[in-house]
Amino acid sequence: MMAMACVRKFRFTRPLFHLQWRYYSLQTKSERPTFGIAFDIDGVMLRGRNVIGGATQALRRLFKDPSNPSGGLRESERAIELSNLLGVYIKSCQVLQGHTPFRKLVNRFGDELVLAVGKGEPANVMSEYGFRKVVSMDEYASSFVNIDPLAQYKSCANQLSSHNKDLLSQLEGDVDITNTHVHAAFVVSDPIDWGRDIQVLCDVLRSGGLPGKSGGHQPPLFFAADDLEYQAAFPTVRLGMGAFRIALESIFNRIHHSALTYTSFGKPNATVFKDAEIVLQKISSSIGSETTDHPKISNAENFPTHEIKSLYMIGDNPPVDIFGARQAGLPWFSILTRTGCFSGEGNHADFPADLVVDTVEDAIDYILKKHSKEYL
Amino acid sequence: MMAMACVRKFRFTRPLFHLQWRYYSLQTKSERPTFGIAFDIDGVMLRGRNVIGGATQALRRLFKDPSNPSGGLRESERAIELSNLLGVYIKSCQVLQGHTPFRKLVNRFGDELVLAVGKGEPANVMSEYGFRKVVSMDEYASSFVNIDPLAQYKSCANQLSSHNKDLLSQLEGDVDITNTHVHAAFVVSDPIDWGRDIQVLCDVLRSGGLPGKSGGHQPPLFFAADDLEYQAAFPTVRLGMGAFRIALESIFNRIHHSALTYTSFGKPNATVFKDAEIVLQKISSSIGSETTDHPKISNAENFPTHEIKSLYMIGDNPPVDIFGARQAGLPWFSILTRTGCFSGEGNHADFPADLVVDTVEDAIDYILKKHSKEYL
Repeated sequence: MMAMACVRKFRFTRPLFHLQWRYYSLQTKSERPTFGIAFDIDGVMLRGRNVIGGATQALRRLFKDPSNPSGGLRESERAIELSNLLGVYIKSCQVLQGHTPFRKLVNRFGDELVLAVGKGEPANVMSEYGFRKVVSMDEYASSFVNIDPLAQYKSCANQLSSHNKDLLSQLEGDVDITNTHVHAAFVVSDPIDWGRDIQVLCDVLRSGGLPGKSGGHQPPLFFAADDLEYQAAFPTVRLGMGAFRIALESIFNRIHHSALTYTSFGKPNATVFKDAEIVLQKISSSIGSETTDHPKISNAENFPTHEIKSLYMIGDNPPVDIFGARQAGLPWFSILTRTGCFSGEGNHADFPADLVVDTVEDAIDYILKKHSKEYL
Repeated sequence: MMAMACVRKFRFTRPLFHLQWRYYSLQTKSERPTFGIAFDIDGVMLRGRNVIGGATQALRRLFKDPSNPSGGLRESERAIELSNLLGVYIKSCQVLQGHTPFRKLVNRFGDELVLAVGKGEPANVMSEYGFRKVVSMDEYASSFVNIDPLAQYKSCANQLSSHNKDLLSQLEGDVDITNTHVHAAFVVSDPIDWGRDIQVLCDVLRSGGLPGKSGGHQPPLFFAADDLEYQAAFPTVRLGMGAFRIALESIFNRIHHSALTYTSFGKPNATVFKDAEIVLQKISSSIGSETTDHPKISNAENFPTHEIKSLYMIGDNPPVDIFGARQAGLPWFSILTRTGCFSGEGNHADFPADLVVDTVEDAIDYILKKHSKEYL
């Protein structure tokens, strides 16, 4: 789950969407965009790896040239994946993932042993953020003999990829995992092996950071998201990271004298919306500031902020997307689609959105019409 | 986790343990044993697959000829496994497993589609009990496309064994799994893939038995055990089936309008102790009833009951073994060992045992001394 921020740029005859580094002379009333859009992905754009309805067409309406990639800038794997799936060019700076805020914790934990949990290569994600002693759950669990009594039944699932083996060998030269306290645990993405991961997390968190030991304060625990359910490819919603958190918490609180403490960075946490707002402002500030046709913006933070007056959150999950936008407050405007977790006739009873539409196309229609008076 | 019932037989010069079909002339005050012993395995006899201390020696003291197997009788896989691990001959009728009571539900569900969850071959276990339309979780989940959004990350764990494939092909000829309601779910043994199993169980239980559907009463859910933690090979206790149940229940109760209902057959359920008592009585009744050296007792229920005056439960897990024996009441006497979940100096504060000892050997010592006056 993530929010993809897109910023709109205005062209001579009709509105276009800016996602690359070629510009036309502006003849709009305003030189800079006045609104930004944050898209949830699962249940709005995609179900699993399947594009929902007219999501691609909806996005393309916001791009000047959706198929022409910029050059010389580093792409995150997710931006590439989304670009391929959606058929439009998405830059890494426009992708906010649940674990993106983890990078803010490098100053605190960058030189300490930290545990990274989840599908894919969570240790690599954390390493890219600047953490210098990070170990994945696969690597960590493999270091403690018999820590998972069911490991014998999982002949392949926990085999280290060749890349992870490289990472492990790099780490092992510096750190004796079985004798070094874990200082923080990060659930970066959806865990694959819930049984093992809950067991090992309980071992680490209740022991002060080292399985088999006792006592010690619980190391901090961070979650990239807290979605109880989300829309994937199966017709009905699937359990998300929030469900994993509930399972871990319910067990931990039964076996330990003090309740589990943790921090969730994902929606509906207002931090996510604040970060998206900053990204949108920075991107909009970069528009029209270039002196060449291909300005290099490797880091949008280099540009002064530009205040956007309207921010739209298009999501499908009311307690996550809509509640989050409401908590964030103005200038956020929430739009709920019926292509994911929600499919009611009217609005959501507990977390009503500012607007309910059938699809993301309808959401784009509404936004463009609403701002049409800003065009020449 | 299971209770292994052993019944003592008296010989001419000193007490011996009966576990096979050769007898000596009895010259005891009583022709039949007056006590029985139920052993917990994990944390008393074994840690994982490692024999604890003097467990084998302790058991051998109770056997006349611990190494000579009987012939012509069918062994359960667990009896064979224990026999090999412990170095003494254990018959299948002396092994009570958590799922043994499931056989009592054949009359109710024998012709309905039921779901069997857990490590090993849970569907085969249920088939042996007489269930005629049973499908394992591996088979069931494989039948619904995209039911597990993380399946792509589990390349080997969910591959069906060749045997399971045979079973599936037998079932498929009769049942269209994706269009047939599940009438009951049985957690037979420790689940391997918690994430998938919790997801699919939620799908089945909240839909009235068929993922993707809605409404309908929750199908019955049965657990073979409810141990929150148990002693395996790792130095500290590991999460058991009770932890899985807590995880499932906490999530289900968040996503469904009514709370999860289920039945646990494992200790400390008094039914387990009642069943063990019956087995011990039947086995004791069979002693001295044979007319040949190798009587065939394929089913101990064929013999009339003989009342045993003392029953000993030797366990390591206070809330499970000791509490269970207390709930069962007389003639159960609980003995707590310090080789597993418990290692305190005195007694357990919340679930105090009748006796606390260091090892199972000490427990056997106590029992034999207590009944020594019954020997000639």
